[in-house]
Amino acid sequence: MNADPKFLKNSPHIRRTNQENTDKTGKIYVKGSRPDIQVPMQQVELSQSSPNGTNGQGNPLFFLYDTSGPYTDSSESTDIKKGLKNLRKDWITERKDSYILERSSSKYSQNQEQKNIPIDIRFPETRKPVKALPSRNVTQMHYARRGIITPEMEFVAIRENCLREHYLRSLDKNDRVKIGKYHAGNSFGANIPSEVTPEFVRTEVAEGRAIIPANINHPESEPMIIGRNFLVKINANIGNSAVTSSIQEEVDKMTWAIRWGADTVMDLSTGKHIHQTREWIIRNSPVPIGTVPIYQALEKVDGKAEDLTWDLFRDTLIEQAEQGVDYFTIHAGVKLEYVPLTADRVTGIVSRGGSILAKWCLAHHQENFLYTHFEEICEIMKAYDVSFSLGDGLRPGSNADANDVAQLSELKTLGELTSLAWKQDVQVMIEGPGHVPMHLIKENMDIQLKECHGAPFYTLGPLVTDIAPGYDHITSAMGAGMIGWFGTAMLCYVTPKEHLGLPNKNDVKEGIITYKIAAHAADLAKGHPAAQLRDNALSKARFEFRWDDQFNLGLDPQRAREYHDETLPQEGAKVAHFCSMCGPHFCSMKITQDVREYAKNKGIGEKLALEEGMVDKAKEFVAKGSEIYLADKSKKLDKNF
Amino acid sequence: MNADPKFLKNSPHIRRTNQENTDKTGKIYVKGSRPDIQVPMQQVELSQSSPNGTNGQGNPLFFLYDTSGPYTDSSESTDIKKGLKNLRKDWITERKDSYILERSSSKYSQNQEQKNIPIDIRFPETRKPVKALPSRNVTQMHYARRGIITPEMEFVAIRENCLREHYLRSLDKNDRVKIGKYHAGNSFGANIPSEVTPEFVRTEVAEGRAIIPANINHPESEPMIIGRNFLVKINANIGNSAVTSSIQEEVDKMTWAIRWGADTVMDLSTGKHIHQTREWIIRNSPVPIGTVPIYQALEKVDGKAEDLTWDLFRDTLIEQAEQGVDYFTIHAGVKLEYVPLTADRVTGIVSRGGSILAKWCLAHHQENFLYTHFEEICEIMKAYDVSFSLGDGLRPGSNADANDVAQLSELKTLGELTSLAWKQDVQVMIEGPGHVPMHLIKENMDIQLKECHGAPFYTLGPLVTDIAPGYDHITSAMGAGMIGWFGTAMLCYVTPKEHLGLPNKNDVKEGIITYKIAAHAADLAKGHPAAQLRDNALSKARFEFRWDDQFNLGLDPQRAREYHDETLPQEGAKVAHFCSMCGPHFCSMKITQDVREYAKNKGIGEKLALEEGMVDKAKEFVAKGSEIYLADKSKKLDKNF
Repeated sequence: MNADPKFLKNSPHIRRTNQENTDKTGKIYVKGSRPDIQVPMQQVELSQSSPNGTNGQGNPLFFLYDTSGPYTDSSESTDIKKGLKNLRKDWITERKDSYILERSSSKYSQNQEQKNIPIDIRFPETRKPVKALPSRNVTQMHYARRGIITPEMEFVAIRENCLREHYLRSLDKNDRVKIGKYHAGNSFGANIPSEVTPEFVRTEVAEGRAIIPANINHPESEPMIIGRNFLVKINANIGNSAVTSSIQEEVDKMTWAIRWGADTVMDLSTGKHIHQTREWIIRNSPVPIGTVPIYQALEKVDGKAEDLTWDLFRDTLIEQAEQGVDYFTIHAGVKLEYVPLTADRVTGIVSRGGSILAKWCLAHHQENFLYTHFEEICEIMKAYDVSFSLGDGLRPGSNADANDVAQLSELKTLGELTSLAWKQDVQVMIEGPGHVPMHLIKENMDIQLKECHGAPFYTLGPLVTDIAPGYDHITSAMGAGMIGWFGTAMLCYVTPKEHLGLPNKNDVKEGIITYKIAAHAADLAKGHPAAQLRDNALSKARFEFRWDDQFNLGLDPQRAREYHDETLPQEGAKVAHFCSMCGPHFCSMKITQDVREYAKNKGIGEKLALEEGMVDKAKEFVAKGSEIYLADKSKKLDKNF
Repeated sequence: MNADPKFLKNSPHIRRTNQENTDKTGKIYVKGSRPDIQVPMQQVELSQSSPNGTNGQGNPLFFLYDTSGPYTDSSESTDIKKGLKNLRKDWITERKDSYILERSSSKYSQNQEQKNIPIDIRFPETRKPVKALPSRNVTQMHYARRGIITPEMEFVAIRENCLREHYLRSLDKNDRVKIGKYHAGNSFGANIPSEVTPEFVRTEVAEGRAIIPANINHPESEPMIIGRNFLVKINANIGNSAVTSSIQEEVDKMTWAIRWGADTVMDLSTGKHIHQTREWIIRNSPVPIGTVPIYQALEKVDGKAEDLTWDLFRDTLIEQAEQGVDYFTIHAGVKLEYVPLTADRVTGIVSRGGSILAKWCLAHHQENFLYTHFEEICEIMKAYDVSFSLGDGLRPGSNADANDVAQLSELKTLGELTSLAWKQDVQVMIEGPGHVPMHLIKENMDIQLKECHGAPFYTLGPLVTDIAPGYDHITSAMGAGMIGWFGTAMLCYVTPKEHLGLPNKNDVKEGIITYKIAAHAADLAKGHPAAQLRDNALSKARFEFRWDDQFNLGLDPQRAREYHDETLPQEGAKVAHFCSMCGPHFCSMKITQDVREYAKNKGIGEKLALEEGMVDKAKEFVAKGSEIYLADKSKKLDKNF
């Protein structure tokens, strides 16, 4: 921990967003190989350890992954009526494999343009969509498989190194080894490198183990990657419904969600003006946007599932792809033959998409049209680089239904569809449940990895019990942390309102922080080479009573500060060597420091104990007592799990 | 699910607290073999499934474990100035192995009696303490080992059968088998019977795998059991500090904590009037009360750890034992030789008790006096039946320090002390951490079981990451659920204020519900024979739009109702077949019901699919695809874990 903060501050690689605001947290950008690769990070400057502290020295700058986009950059001005800058525009056009359309190819979009939509509903700026040239393929997977490292991949590589940043930048080669020190988790076969290189990103995308959702019609997005050899990501769902909420609210929820750390956002709107709501969200979103196109298709046929047609659905896909949606949930695995398998379930079919398609299949007594037209869907996806999120329409809606034949049959089909998509170089992730008791989570993950050939898993929770409506962000985070550890690449958040109502802004934040916890706990347990650095920095700050550092390194500095101030509001308490739990004369951390001090002054402690043979004895008896104590923890766990 | 609700309502075994209040939830008592064994439960009456529902029939009554004491019994009047009824008084006196003391044997208590304490601080009623007759032993373990089934054990047996109640009471023998249906978890060697008998309770207590904390000076308490072959329990910490909070607040927090499900409560007060605060809490508590006597001992020497003496500590133990504390945290495992092992930790010693004793050891350069006087402590414990909660003074305070040599050395010593306590038939549980990343939790549990000879483990969390101050109820519930699954018998809650301040009432509730989730998720994953019944009942209610039933079966009906009503406040919405998330025309659950209906009317579904060979094919391909699909889940998991 000998990094020189001055070196970092003056690093030519780093652009600060605000030179004045040099203390505490602030946004910085790390430059890549070309000037327009500028990767955002949040920098946390830490105060000095006091002389009573562990080392009485400075503490290195800390760099955190930053999903918040230009909204937290004080040098940028943003206007949601204009949308964000087109960060990736040049990267896309330089590839010369796409062209600008005069108007959307979707009939529905064309109609919407001509319609008399109220001025506050329609997004004010119009843009022309882009599309792959005939016979070209614009997916990141396609480039990766041809050996091309795109600016998107380089951006992702720099971004993924975020937590390791102060090591990678400032320390000599010997120090770099230190990063690996904490890599003692159990990765269950994941392979997270000490340093993420653009080439590593390319390989992972080429082999389908990771996706970079990056529709060429969403040039505003900051590239990110979803794969089990990278940081575990989280998704936040937003979207209005027929019953409640407005466009402005939804855009607010999106910027709020990314402020707290959502890596992607799904717009699940089902109410009025879905098309316009989506336009507002995409034009203002620096993170990939996902949708479930069947929701809008159903609206177009007034909610009558049996009236859905392939043509109508196809037009919806094009409509949304040309708006810039980065990934589509497609429930192509809900095959007719699986529907009766849900009849004896406690909770039947609970996926909206799944139930729509089940109804269609039975009504027409035909195979699911998403399954029969799957290769045509791939053709559309690759013309814009929309990634598949293959939907789990038959996911369990209760613990009783977890890992049943219906769910696992669909999962097997999703594996077959993954192979079909990969034939056309279309990026794929697989959606997972839902409700799964703890003892069945590992089984679900293992089956997914096997059946879907290593394609990233993207799960909703899972909830480990059904008995806590009002607290399902918690019941599900318990499952999410575990399945993230076992290999899930992205966790779809659940808010406290799950099963009860639509989340408001507070619920969105609560869900996101809860899922940031699950994702980080998973990174830790997987042995991500740098994840533990943040825990250690925060714990060290806590132990040294550096209250502000403790707050700033946490997931929600605001709330931590609020809670602290509830009992000790005075500013002096922020540097006090005690807290409200125990008071000034009774603090274990203070006592430990006294112990250390005492031991040091009196010359006792390690030295004395050694003289008395005590430590030797202790170590000996521990070593004899059980081989488990001295074993390599990461290896040891393989036996247990 | 063929129980006849009428039979249950009229059961001679059940005393209803309020005959008028027959609908929805209500408190009932199940009688044991003698009239004064009356075990409280919460009964939830469920509405009929609608004709569109799964079976269009009645749903059986549901019985929930009830920790709330007489406060929720509308036929009882409670007055905190008088304290609760002495439920166990006759059981204790009938054993004729104890006698009434004229006054407390503790000098400190005697002084307190004579002191001029303000009238609102001193508990108004005085009582005379009881103590074992010379050479007698009044522990539940002592009785158990002599083959005696105490009323406490019978009470516990009936209580543990709670979730299985509607099966055990009303159904014939064949139906009883059904309970086992859901027993598909992985119990990691725990052995939970389909029906808990008093004899089973006795054996578990005799062999030290479970404890019934039941000080003879706390006759107000309703017996409960802590052991891994029973329902996982949770503890709530309360207590004022030198900085903040009053006696009334603490009594309020206790009744509030048991209202939401705390199985035991620890009074960790460190401020003024500790003695009096404790008296108020014990006299009003139907759940066992735990303390950490060293806190009060330290107050008595004005916070100077080095001034602590065995005599002073001994007097404190007697003071608290004669007040009725049911279990003591005793940090006897913090041996001098282990203290230097904490020097290189990120967070040194974070246990208050641990740090006090470490300081004492170094100051005197002597072995921990709790260790050297351990057998004398046992003598005191057995004279009142105070259980040990052997403290983990060297628990990790950060993920970086988890499962290190200091922690595991102490744990081994706790195992030795367990054997010493058991020689005197004193009940023992073992305290555990703290902060442990997910991949090290199983290891910690396994070492505890091995080193401590199967004595119950009682853990604080553990927190699976350090980076979320303000949300540590969640970071720790993730670890708590897992370690409960692996075998921990009781989970000590963590509130959102952990590391930041003292919990208020809201925090206490938040911590408890979060830990009820963890405990229940653990019961589920362990394959508790009846735990899943509650999940299923709630999920079935959810699927059938029986909103009130869904709320009432949940852990917090109030919040669930509030959240639902935020978007759909009309009473009509409680019976509506949709909710605010999707609106009236777009609900997966409704669609599934339509699908079932449709399939039934048109004669398609299972039958048709079978004709077409589809289901057969599906089943065949699943069977072929992977043996994992058809394997017994509980057996399968043994390989993975």
